[in-house]
Amino acid sequence: MSKHYKPKNSLMSPRFSGVKTFMRMELVEDESVLDDVDFAVLGIPFDTCATFRVGCRQGPASIREMSALAAKPYSGPLGVDIFEECSGVDYGDLGSVPGYVEDSFDVIKKGMLPIFQKGVIPVAMGGDHSVTLPELRACAEVNGPVALIHFDAHYDTIDKYFGKDYTHGTPFYHAAKEGLVDTSKSIQVGIREGLYGPEDLTRSSDLGYAAIKADEHHKIGNEAVIERIIERVGDAKAFLTFDIDYLDPACAPGTGTPVPGGFTTADALEIIRGLKDLNIIGYDIVEVAPMFDPSGITSIAAAGIMQEFLSHIAYRKKKARA
Amino acid sequence: MSKHYKPKNSLMSPRFSGVKTFMRMELVEDESVLDDVDFAVLGIPFDTCATFRVGCRQGPASIREMSALAAKPYSGPLGVDIFEECSGVDYGDLGSVPGYVEDSFDVIKKGMLPIFQKGVIPVAMGGDHSVTLPELRACAEVNGPVALIHFDAHYDTIDKYFGKDYTHGTPFYHAAKEGLVDTSKSIQVGIREGLYGPEDLTRSSDLGYAAIKADEHHKIGNEAVIERIIERVGDAKAFLTFDIDYLDPACAPGTGTPVPGGFTTADALEIIRGLKDLNIIGYDIVEVAPMFDPSGITSIAAAGIMQEFLSHIAYRKKKARA
Amino acid sequence: MSKHYKPKNSLMSPRFSGVKTFMRMELVEDESVLDDVDFAVLGIPFDTCATFRVGCRQGPASIREMSALAAKPYSGPLGVDIFEECSGVDYGDLGSVPGYVEDSFDVIKKGMLPIFQKGVIPVAMGGDHSVTLPELRACAEVNGPVALIHFDAHYDTIDKYFGKDYTHGTPFYHAAKEGLVDTSKSIQVGIREGLYGPEDLTRSSDLGYAAIKADEHHKIGNEAVIERIIERVGDAKAFLTFDIDYLDPACAPGTGTPVPGGFTTADALEIIRGLKDLNIIGYDIVEVAPMFDPSGITSIAAAGIMQEFLSHIAYRKKKARA
Amino acid sequence: MSKHYKPKNSLMSPRFSGVKTFMRMELVEDESVLDDVDFAVLGIPFDTCATFRVGCRQGPASIREMSALAAKPYSGPLGVDIFEECSGVDYGDLGSVPGYVEDSFDVIKKGMLPIFQKGVIPVAMGGDHSVTLPELRACAEVNGPVALIHFDAHYDTIDKYFGKDYTHGTPFYHAAKEGLVDTSKSIQVGIREGLYGPEDLTRSSDLGYAAIKADEHHKIGNEAVIERIIERVGDAKAFLTFDIDYLDPACAPGTGTPVPGGFTTADALEIIRGLKDLNIIGYDIVEVAPMFDPSGITSIAAAGIMQEFLSHIAYRKKKARA
Amino acid sequence: MSKHYKPKNSLMSPRFSGVKTFMRMELVEDESVLDDVDFAVLGIPFDTCATFRVGCRQGPASIREMSALAAKPYSGPLGVDIFEECSGVDYGDLGSVPGYVEDSFDVIKKGMLPIFQKGVIPVAMGGDHSVTLPELRACAEVNGPVALIHFDAHYDTIDKYFGKDYTHGTPFYHAAKEGLVDTSKSIQVGIREGLYGPEDLTRSSDLGYAAIKADEHHKIGNEAVIERIIERVGDAKAFLTFDIDYLDPACAPGTGTPVPGGFTTADALEIIRGLKDLNIIGYDIVEVAPMFDPSGITSIAAAGIMQEFLSHIAYRKKKARA
Amino acid sequence: MSKHYKPKNSLMSPRFSGVKTFMRMELVEDESVLDDVDFAVLGIPFDTCATFRVGCRQGPASIREMSALAAKPYSGPLGVDIFEECSGVDYGDLGSVPGYVEDSFDVIKKGMLPIFQKGVIPVAMGGDHSVTLPELRACAEVNGPVALIHFDAHYDTIDKYFGKDYTHGTPFYHAAKEGLVDTSKSIQVGIREGLYGPEDLTRSSDLGYAAIKADEHHKIGNEAVIERIIERVGDAKAFLTFDIDYLDPACAPGTGTPVPGGFTTADALEIIRGLKDLNIIGYDIVEVAPMFDPSGITSIAAAGIMQEFLSHIAYRKKKARA
Repeated sequence: MSKHYKPKNSLMSPRFSGVKTFMRMELVEDESVLDDVDFAVLGIPFDTCATFRVGCRQGPASIREMSALAAKPYSGPLGVDIFEECSGVDYGDLGSVPGYVEDSFDVIKKGMLPIFQKGVIPVAMGGDHSVTLPELRACAEVNGPVALIHFDAHYDTIDKYFGKDYTHGTPFYHAAKEGLVDTSKSIQVGIREGLYGPEDLTRSSDLGYAAIKADEHHKIGNEAVIERIIERVGDAKAFLTFDIDYLDPACAPGTGTPVPGGFTTADALEIIRGLKDLNIIGYDIVEVAPMFDPSGITSIAAAGIMQEFLSHIAYRKKKARA
Repeated sequence: MSKHYKPKNSLMSPRFSGVKTFMRMELVEDESVLDDVDFAVLGIPFDTCATFRVGCRQGPASIREMSALAAKPYSGPLGVDIFEECSGVDYGDLGSVPGYVEDSFDVIKKGMLPIFQKGVIPVAMGGDHSVTLPELRACAEVNGPVALIHFDAHYDTIDKYFGKDYTHGTPFYHAAKEGLVDTSKSIQVGIREGLYGPEDLTRSSDLGYAAIKADEHHKIGNEAVIERIIERVGDAKAFLTFDIDYLDPACAPGTGTPVPGGFTTADALEIIRGLKDLNIIGYDIVEVAPMFDPSGITSIAAAGIMQEFLSHIAYRKKKARA
Repeated sequence: MSKHYKPKNSLMSPRFSGVKTFMRMELVEDESVLDDVDFAVLGIPFDTCATFRVGCRQGPASIREMSALAAKPYSGPLGVDIFEECSGVDYGDLGSVPGYVEDSFDVIKKGMLPIFQKGVIPVAMGGDHSVTLPELRACAEVNGPVALIHFDAHYDTIDKYFGKDYTHGTPFYHAAKEGLVDTSKSIQVGIREGLYGPEDLTRSSDLGYAAIKADEHHKIGNEAVIERIIERVGDAKAFLTFDIDYLDPACAPGTGTPVPGGFTTADALEIIRGLKDLNIIGYDIVEVAPMFDPSGITSIAAAGIMQEFLSHIAYRKKKARA
Repeated sequence: MSKHYKPKNSLMSPRFSGVKTFMRMELVEDESVLDDVDFAVLGIPFDTCATFRVGCRQGPASIREMSALAAKPYSGPLGVDIFEECSGVDYGDLGSVPGYVEDSFDVIKKGMLPIFQKGVIPVAMGGDHSVTLPELRACAEVNGPVALIHFDAHYDTIDKYFGKDYTHGTPFYHAAKEGLVDTSKSIQVGIREGLYGPEDLTRSSDLGYAAIKADEHHKIGNEAVIERIIERVGDAKAFLTFDIDYLDPACAPGTGTPVPGGFTTADALEIIRGLKDLNIIGYDIVEVAPMFDPSGITSIAAAGIMQEFLSHIAYRKKKARA
Repeated sequence: MSKHYKPKNSLMSPRFSGVKTFMRMELVEDESVLDDVDFAVLGIPFDTCATFRVGCRQGPASIREMSALAAKPYSGPLGVDIFEECSGVDYGDLGSVPGYVEDSFDVIKKGMLPIFQKGVIPVAMGGDHSVTLPELRACAEVNGPVALIHFDAHYDTIDKYFGKDYTHGTPFYHAAKEGLVDTSKSIQVGIREGLYGPEDLTRSSDLGYAAIKADEHHKIGNEAVIERIIERVGDAKAFLTFDIDYLDPACAPGTGTPVPGGFTTADALEIIRGLKDLNIIGYDIVEVAPMFDPSGITSIAAAGIMQEFLSHIAYRKKKARA
Repeated sequence: MSKHYKPKNSLMSPRFSGVKTFMRMELVEDESVLDDVDFAVLGIPFDTCATFRVGCRQGPASIREMSALAAKPYSGPLGVDIFEECSGVDYGDLGSVPGYVEDSFDVIKKGMLPIFQKGVIPVAMGGDHSVTLPELRACAEVNGPVALIHFDAHYDTIDKYFGKDYTHGTPFYHAAKEGLVDTSKSIQVGIREGLYGPEDLTRSSDLGYAAIKADEHHKIGNEAVIERIIERVGDAKAFLTFDIDYLDPACAPGTGTPVPGGFTTADALEIIRGLKDLNIIGYDIVEVAPMFDPSGITSIAAAGIMQEFLSHIAYRKKKARA
């Protein structure tokens, strides 16, 4: 690496000032930067596949705005300074063809590919959950099938909706069918959506996914959930996808299909911290739709969770170095 | 039954479309429909009795709007499909004489009576908590005194307020005095309001109600709460009334008299699910005032809780059939 | 006509009660009702073509909610009672294939066709402005090319966007090219958008449209604007399309691409009233995105404008009868 | 007068600080203060008579909060310093029996009476428009019938609603019938509501009121409106009642029954200033419902209009002295 | 004491009415009242030291408004009636020199001093957290160094920020250095902020403070937290300062620097109740910035917590008397 | 110039995507860019001097977000393409020392100086109105005293507030006294604030400023206002400062000290366009406080006005070239 990219020093310029990049990092939208970074934070503001309330195309901008609050690089719980260990940038937003699904998927896959090819860890901000499919297509092209760690209120394993393959309810059906993920090492956490029928319950397991449903999750507690995920994933290369509606609507009102009975941000942070030793090679957080949350707590939660993702990366780099 | 009423199929017409009936059910405002349904969802948009912040006359419309999110009929936890088992409609709203309490109570009672007479289970949306009194008057006329299962931050057992019998703080005083409920089988859950004096503490128990106050509730946990309710109610015919302010203001900001220190929506859902075997012949949910909650989570919570009520009804019908 | 459809009597049941149909009219989603009505109010909740902020799929529900305020049928200025003269219903929402443009256009056209075939006047609520294209396709199939009366801050006459024919910025390019409108009798009113270049200025006139741009509109005043429209349209069959962003953001904040420097709701009402004698055979109002307007004034304005549309229809029927 | 009451000096204590009394005046809730003041600002937080959206019981608190912005006593246009000329207090709120109309009217009338008896000019904040009726009852008991200067989108001259005499749509029917106002000197300004039928148009004139309807008002302009009011009222003792929905929803979204097509705050201020020489012995401003206006501009407008009322009083006192 | 100050009786005048003093207590801004009260609630609307989002100068007004909800004096859990035991007033707001830090600190200290001198217990509402420094300067001048019980997401023990001693991130560095607190008896609870580096972790302990960080707090539970605080503080005179961002953003969105992963209002209430026997001689609650919370739950939580503070005072007075 | 800086092409990447720079221009925070641009848009997020409601430190971020709507470079009314004529960048935000006025003024002046020295035209976004003082200090150091074109509801010519020289109410007193502006060529437009006394009226004229007060402005109309400004300023070098509260609260609710009775955005745009031939060498727009405007129309108005400023610059460059 020829340059070590760090955010602005908030002890020198006030955190509330400046153009809103993620955690006040440098904005570098040029592919060549991938030679010099450990991770790249990027937006994928595509929401054409949302089937209920739309608007998560505005998610990345909102998370970036709130991330200035999180612009302190040292994680107490993990004992690691993100930017001491790592070089990273805000890589801007991938393009799309708004209103056109498959064209957009192509643009997104093409945008993700060099990141994986360079071994840089992407931390992507959706967009609706359909964007994880082209992300995984790029990921698999480089890494083969990966374990999926999937936090969500919904399975997202329907095959078709209105006769169409692609909506935000179908990505993990296609990811399995296309061989992008190794479902035998994959797990879905927090599921509690209403269903169209009993077949919805088995579709996920038929594809090979394991699941920890919400009622069980509440009962067994966070430590048991962490254990189960670790056990399932093992040392496989993994991709972690976090749908913000895993959180309860009280914690994340700003999303398109909130489901009551979810989890707190403290739960999410504890569980994610517990996964720090897994071999996670890509992250995303999706479905933040800020117009449904005038107080901005959804984006604050998302920024906090993403800060944990970056701490993961730093922690593992430090551990590897040790 | 000559017709089986079901909601629109959300796999055929998008959930976000259409006039906002509850869970996308058919709107039938004609009394004759009562011959063909197991349950009737209805609104009682009356809020003249609210003593602090008013506005829950707009509750039913807001819950209906958000209920499209809940428009998936299959309950995973109870393993039952609401509309496989049951026929049900959105019965519209009962009338009222806005600004005039006793005239309105008469209209409400008159509207509820045929529902109970036909043995249909009402799932009513208030309105302020005073509406439960005329509901119970209709209920008792058909069923005699019932057990009351009452979730709330407030006792609502004051006798008079400003010299008047009827406000949203007095319904369960009058329900007891009028013999509409069998207080020896009734229980109040989640109480944590500030009080005007020590007499407020005893007024409820003097009437014969049991109570699980919030600090105890937090301490003993949901399973113990379920057990106590079941034990208290036994196999009596019961009416379940859910004041949305049972939930913490973080989960239900949209209400007239929020009280900090309450419960999560996950708590509510777990407890209500635990009551599925009780003989509940009527439900209501009250005090949703959407103008105090721009993100709409209060109505989302209410719709989710009502979905549990409907799952109850389907579960018991399936059980009875089995 | 075998039945005269009227709204609920707000002197009998309070205006704030009931499921939210437009102006409290009866909800009849069956095509057969078209034999019995003069007009049909309907929603087209499709917003996949919005290129900036999305969300106007929630427009029809929001306008319906606020239309209860407008649920008084007598127009003082036109001296006519809508429902004395006319029979009308809320016809529900047309379907769509969310996320898929051309499939949705087919569904919309198919839904509009019987309305025009029966000679019923549609009053449609978008959705984004792209929905006017399939509306006009249905209209032209029955009526041939019509004059277009187009209120908007934008020309919407771009040919392609991102290489795609259909977005909410292109409908009137295609309407002209497909021969759906007679541009020589058509006029665009209120245009004030920033442009990508000088060619944007001429594209509309090259297609044959006339335009009254915002700065001129402000200068000449409402009466002159009315005259120009009347002169342009003459006695041609006309379709009136009203993009809510014709109004200034202060009057209509709830829209996807607001442009400062627009017009007041009083301006809009005065001008529309002035067009009462034109031969308008279809109306729509589009681009209401309520999540950007917590106070709801955009939907209130839209409902008020639609009430004028209905008064038009009644006025012309009364005039024809006289 | 033994004491000259003035507001806090905002050059000594910051305007944003302190308990929110109107314009930072002293809060004196004791009747004896009436001997020492020229005017008394007071709240009447009663909204049981609102027939659509309720909540204006929270109006006085919201106006008080925003009035700190208006806490500068010198009116440039009238060249007068309110508190140089006048002594005035925030008199607090009158009581009510929430939910009970006639009891509340009695409380309100009783509260207003000593103000009129002492010759103090009340500047009251509603509350829904029904509160003007008991205000006028008190006024007439002391002063006999007065001229009414009535700014509003609605006539408020219906006789009954749901069979009841009193709602916020009926006060000026009863005021006329009870002889509280001299309708031959009274005028209604800004009327533009939809109507239930043509009889609504004549009910006001049958009672003897004159009216300037909105379309005419827009056409003739503010100066002509001022002239007509002055001509109508002459030198009669007058009561000015200002329903905030006179303003367009863009200027006053925070109200229960907004009607599009209204007036700007600049219009209101100019017209009111033009009435400074009339013999106005009481003022109120009603129907501010702040929960429908998260930006608070409705209360800002109300506070600005009330500042004009106070400037009126000071101006006339100065003129009388000269 | 010559007068026993009590709030308005909400059974006589409705809770929603009247100028918004805390819990509807009498507003007495005169120092002489300190002879007649046990506690004084007051505002310190100073926010110039906030380093991220400002606006908590509007905190006291918002808490006062919402405190009407809490205007019931009897605490069920502690079995005590605040105003039976105690006399108390709303003492208004202290002044400041907006925009000028050290001048404002002098004004604040001077305002607090007589309260401590008279042995009255202050319950102050900030303002940003910097206001606790001048409060403690006044406290220490009378009482010497006190134990600090500090609930917060942040340490607030930085020494300098932008080269300046005073911001809302530095008060407890200076409090320790100036000898205002006895850090050996002081404890910080709930800390979970991101850090600028590992030195931030030790700065607090180097000053002698103990801390219960958020991850530990979640793990050990509320009862263990209570025990640790009690053990640390012992019977020392203590000052309790509560930064509202101790609560999770879901419970307290209205604050300047929210940190995800926090605690519920129920947690806060339970823990505070558990400290009832400590010798606490002053309280404050800070950093409520209502413009970031349109539903007002932050102020509702603050009012509820303050009600517990007042119950503490009454409980200890009753206990002392017994 | 070695490089021509242009915004992203919105026909290639969707306008809603990307990090939010002004009008999607390139972000270049390096002083060396000043050699290559005609104008620099920059933020000055300083609000310590606001005396009522604070928060305009968040103004620049909000205007940038909404400016994507304005990201079309061609001005129809002026017939000019901004980026055909000009090179320009988003220059980021100037620093400050939050909470410390004079230190911040020094940082701001130092940041502005190279812009003026290079002959680049700054288009600054405040921050509160105090920031115009250090801007003018930098301007005058390079250009000598300039004519001030000042749009505002307030004079901002008080000498001291709370004994301090610098607040957002005092900049134009000091600008005059320090000789930064030539008041004989300067004019204040739109003034309508309440005053502390008659001396407030003369302070501005005593300093030599001309003023067009709001009531006169409304009466004479926009064209006369344009003429008066042009006449006053002549061919002097001028600085245009636009306080967003010139606009009516209905058009710009998001500001700290809104004053009712103001102007529309259409008024502002027309007047500013009329000044296109003046020799304006610097622009700013101040007092946008987005947290008081959930619908964002204030920032939309600000972005639209700034687009006019940039069109000015392009127009004059084109004219000079011709």
